[in-house]
This record gives sequence, structure tokens and C-alpha cells, in this order.
Amino acid sequence: MTTTAALAVPTASAGFERTTIERREVGPHDVLFDVAFCGICHSDIHQARNEWAEGIFPMVPGHEVAGTVTAVGDQVTKFAVGDRVGVGCFVDSCRECDNCLAGEEQYCLKGEVATYNGRHYDGTETYGGYSKQLVVHEDYTLRIPEGISLEEAAPLLCAGITTYSPLRHWGAGPGKTVAVVGMGGLGHLGVKIAVSMGAEVTVLSQSLKKEEDGRRLGASHYYATEDRQTFRDLRSSFDLILNTVAANLPLDRYLSLLRLDGAMVNVGIPSDPDTFRVMALAGMRRSLSGSKIGGIRETQEMLDFCAEHGIGAEVEVLAPEPRVVDEAYERVVASDVRYRFVIDLGALEA
Amino acid sequence: MTTTAALAVPTASAGFERTTIERREVGPHDVLFDVAFCGICHSDIHQARNEWAEGIFPMVPGHEVAGTVTAVGDQVTKFAVGDRVGVGCFVDSCRECDNCLAGEEQYCLKGEVATYNGRHYDGTETYGGYSKQLVVHEDYTLRIPEGISLEEAAPLLCAGITTYSPLRHWGAGPGKTVAVVGMGGLGHLGVKIAVSMGAEVTVLSQSLKKEEDGRRLGASHYYATEDRQTFRDLRSSFDLILNTVAANLPLDRYLSLLRLDGAMVNVGIPSDPDTFRVMALAGMRRSLSGSKIGGIRETQEMLDFCAEHGIGAEVEVLAPEPRVVDEAYERVVASDVRYRFVIDLGALEA
Repeated sequence: MTTTAALAVPTASAGFERTTIERREVGPHDVLFDVAFCGICHSDIHQARNEWAEGIFPMVPGHEVAGTVTAVGDQVTKFAVGDRVGVGCFVDSCRECDNCLAGEEQYCLKGEVATYNGRHYDGTETYGGYSKQLVVHEDYTLRIPEGISLEEAAPLLCAGITTYSPLRHWGAGPGKTVAVVGMGGLGHLGVKIAVSMGAEVTVLSQSLKKEEDGRRLGASHYYATEDRQTFRDLRSSFDLILNTVAANLPLDRYLSLLRLDGAMVNVGIPSDPDTFRVMALAGMRRSLSGSKIGGIRETQEMLDFCAEHGIGAEVEVLAPEPRVVDEAYERVVASDVRYRFVIDLGALEA
Repeated sequence: MTTTAALAVPTASAGFERTTIERREVGPHDVLFDVAFCGICHSDIHQARNEWAEGIFPMVPGHEVAGTVTAVGDQVTKFAVGDRVGVGCFVDSCRECDNCLAGEEQYCLKGEVATYNGRHYDGTETYGGYSKQLVVHEDYTLRIPEGISLEEAAPLLCAGITTYSPLRHWGAGPGKTVAVVGMGGLGHLGVKIAVSMGAEVTVLSQSLKKEEDGRRLGASHYYATEDRQTFRDLRSSFDLILNTVAANLPLDRYLSLLRLDGAMVNVGIPSDPDTFRVMALAGMRRSLSGSKIGGIRETQEMLDFCAEHGIGAEVEVLAPEPRVVDEAYERVVASDVRYRFVIDLGALEA
């Protein structure tokens, strides 16, 4: 066991504190790395505040982790000391179910092991990337290619793959019209990735406040959804709508923007149920779908794709101080970040 | 113009009456045929009772029409006198939009012309198949192959294509597990067709009352949805759920029965909105979709497929008498028909 510094919430109602946690010994297939940066995902906040079920406290959040390898187990073949690596939303899966065998470990039928606020199959708690060091099995470790800085890479491990995977699965590319709903941490990466895939990209944001950013990221069109005219102008326009917003939207209105056989894919999870009319689907053979992060193979593909196309997250780097992270959480809740916070764990005192 | 006998409802609150209607002159591309049988679709009842918007009265329902050609226009090339023909839910479309050009006229962007309770593009009302004769453009006329009787063929023109098209579109076939929800007019054809496509078919019906029928039609499994254990036993089992029920179902429970990438396709249109949780989709990349009848080319393909596989509707033949049709409507509403009523229009006095 190794003791390492971390930022943790001791209970759901408390702010962050500096603490230490234990990391397991580096096993034969394990990779130990120094965390350089960890992104703040909105789901960190839900879990740290116990807004979803069964939080495990104290909690060290963080599943957008990037750093540099400092030790590897004696049977590790994929990584060496000094390699730039990342870890996303899960650190293990059953490896035996149909979905794991298909490389879709994020849909593991036994339940994949979450990077934090989860339990390994032996029952021990998992602690995430708001820490100085992490030990992960090499099969669940990603390689961060040269050409992306570690701070820009970190958010790709969740926000990047969450948008890349459905864009790939639903065929975003040349000749396809893609709308990205929401210009936040996920949305801004969805725009960059869809543009790089060759699709014609439209941003549907509540207002036009971020239009300049959206166009800089490559969007061809930018519409405000607070303007009802938007829904008249764009009727039956899109092959794919990637909805990154975690609030309940008037789905029938968005569905009307899809062409024949178009799909609206939701990657934000509202806390309340959603409502729609079957006719909004059947009238044009549309689909409502959802997608959850991506498998290990596809996450590596996404990182390589982003490196090739010069895609990183737009980040604001935070000092690794409890008060700073508390304030950042408030700003994420208020949508006051362009576009992702990353914590500089390299600066956390050991 | 030709005067022909018909069964009509004069107003939304009235029962059927025997009446006469005018059919247009046979144009150069038109087919005139004697109606032999017309199926009673549940949507006939909604429209005759004006439960949907803007009914045109008097109304002659019927869009599951089968009969024999008695005259053709001088430029007709596809049909000759004596041919066995059918007409489904629409009798014209714009022929110019992307969807029409793709052979998906049922999704015509201008709006296809409904076989009844609709208007031709020149504004004249359409009257359906509860009548002695029909005149239809040859491009919207289907050929009924030898080997299916006209009474068994009639319901294929709506109920058959409504189930065939999504089964084909979502890849029902060998190695695929398909659940058909509801064992009514649509469902019983969905079972026959999915079985003939080579899929492993499960019926999900409210009770086990029709289990014997379901197995006779080829279903491998039959479960009652009133039994909550069904949803535990069948978790993550199906590639495709074809929902033929027009009532609001607890969708999350049904979605949990889908495997990774599975789709639940709705062909019944509930009058109230439906509710679901995004997590029920995103947790296994599932889809909720809807589908509406099928295009002319696919409807012909469906008829040929049914003839090849010996598939017809299971029908109860009704005398063409107003009182009899009124009673049949009550029985359809009470789900008291195995499995489709067809009216014997051949017996209607001219």
C-alpha cells in the first residue's frame, strides 16, 4: 500500500478537504502514475453531494485523469515509466460478458467498476483522480498521444468519449447534418469532434451568448433555442441531434428537427423522467436514444483521433486547493465555465 | 364520375348508413376495381368517431382494401382487367420530395393523400374501401399475388405493412430475438412475419389467454406482462421490441428487456404522451423509435413475402350491413376479435 495526497469530501454536506488515501501495491499488470490534471465533471458534483444513490464517503471524485507513469508491474506490456497516460470513468469490468467481449466494457452486464464512488469486485472502495497518484490495471489505462497537453487531454477521458462514441456510432461524417444541443463541457467537445469527422454542425444553445466560440470551434450554424422561430426554421433538418443537456427538454420540439430516420441521442441524464409523443417518432421513423461514455478500445481511438485533429478541451486550470475546488463546483452548477475546469494535481503537495 | 354504393357515417356521433358516393372518371393512369373485402383498422374507429383532429363527414372509412380490376386508363402499364389488387393507407403523394424519391412515400414531406378522411391535392375529399368500387392511380395500387385470398390479404395493406416495415428496417432475421407486444390485429401479423423472417419471436401479451394462438403462429415464447416476474426473467433479452399496443405502457420496464443497441419500435399511437427515463436508454445504448406503415415498393415486397410464406391475416368476415359494422366497432374497441374483421363488400348491393 502507498499513501498518497488527495482532495476529498468527508460527507455529502461538507466541502473539500486535503487528506491522504491508500493506493494498492502495484500488481503484476498494474500501472502507477502521478496524476498531472483531473477534470471536473458535472457528475462529480452530483456524487459528492450525494444527489444520486449510495455515495461512499469520504469521496475522492475524478474520472478525467491524465498523468505520467512512475512504475509498472512486472507483467505490464503496454506501458513503461515515463509514458503519458489517462484513466476515464471505469477501472475494471468483468471481461467475460457479451458486452465486455465486444469491447463495450461501459455496458458490462456485471457492472463495470467506477473510477471513484464505486467498489472493486473484492469490495474495496475506489478513489478517483483528485489525488496525487493512481494505480490502475494496464487494460483500463489509456495512452495519451504526443500533441495533446495533459490538461487538455484530461477532460477527453469522460466528456470527449461521451460525445465521440455516439457521433461515431450514429455515423457523423461528410454529408451528415449534426446538431449539438448545449455548449458546455460536453457540447464544446461534441462540436469540435463532429466538425473534425466532417459533419455539418449546428449548435442549439439556449441563447446566442457563446455563438462566437461555437463558430470558432467549427460550427456552421448557431441557433438560440429560446427563440421559437428556431424550431420552425430547422424543421426536418438533422440526421443526428446530440443532446448534451442534463435538463428535461421539450423533446417533441427537438424531434421535429430530425429528418427521416434521424436520431436524437441523449448523453445528459436528467433527474426527472422525460415526456414525448410516439407520433413525433413514428411520423418520420425517428429515434430517441441514449449513450454512455465508451469502451476502452474506442476511448483510445478517440484520443488518437483528437491528437490527429488537434482537439483538446478548452480548460481553466485550478490550483489544487479545497476552497478553489468548492468554488469551481458552484461555477459549474451556474454554467460559468468555458469549458472545463481541470485541477492541477501536479501542484498538490505530496 | 361513377356512382357507387358505400357504408358511411354521416356524422361523428352516428352509426353507419348505406349510401352512395361519386368516384372520379378513370384517368389515363387510373385503375378502377371492384372492392371484394376491406379490413377494419382501429384507426377507422378513431376517425369515424372524430377522436382525432378534423374529420371530414360523411366519412367512408377503409384503408385495407382488396379487389379485382374492372377497368384501366389507356396509359396504365402495370395492371389489366381481372388483376387482383389492393390499396393501403394512401392513394397519392407529392412524388418530388426526398422521401418520395427514396420510395418512402408514407413520410412524404408535403403530406401523402390519405385513402379516406383526406383530400387530394386538388381539394376533393377521399373516400375509403367500405365501398363497392375504388379508382386509384396505378402507382399507388398494389398487386395481390396468387396464393393469398383477398379476405386474408386485405388487412395486410395496413396491419401487415405496419409490422413488416419496422421488422425489416430493424433487421429481424436469423439470430435476432424479437418481442411482439400485443396479440391483436397488428400483433398477430407481426408474429407471423417475424417468424417467417427467421427471428426468434416472443409474444408479450397482457395475459396468457391467447398463448395457444401465439404458439400456433410460430412464437417460441409467450409471456404475460401482467406478471411482474416476466420483466425480471427477460431482462436484456431482445434485439427488437415491436410494440403494437396503442395504450401508454410503462416504457422503462419494456426498455429494460432490450440488449445493448436494442430498439423498441412503436407502431401504435397512444393519445397521451409517453414517459421514460434517459438512463433506461443510455445505460445500454437502447433506442425508442416509431414507424408508420410503409412505402409502395415495400408494401409490394411485403405482399410478395406473405404469399411466399403463406401468410395472411386471421379474419372474421362481416356482412356489409351498417348494424353489423357498428357492432364490429364495439368489439374492436373491446379487443374482442381474432384477429381482424373484414367487410365483404362484394356482397354489398350495387
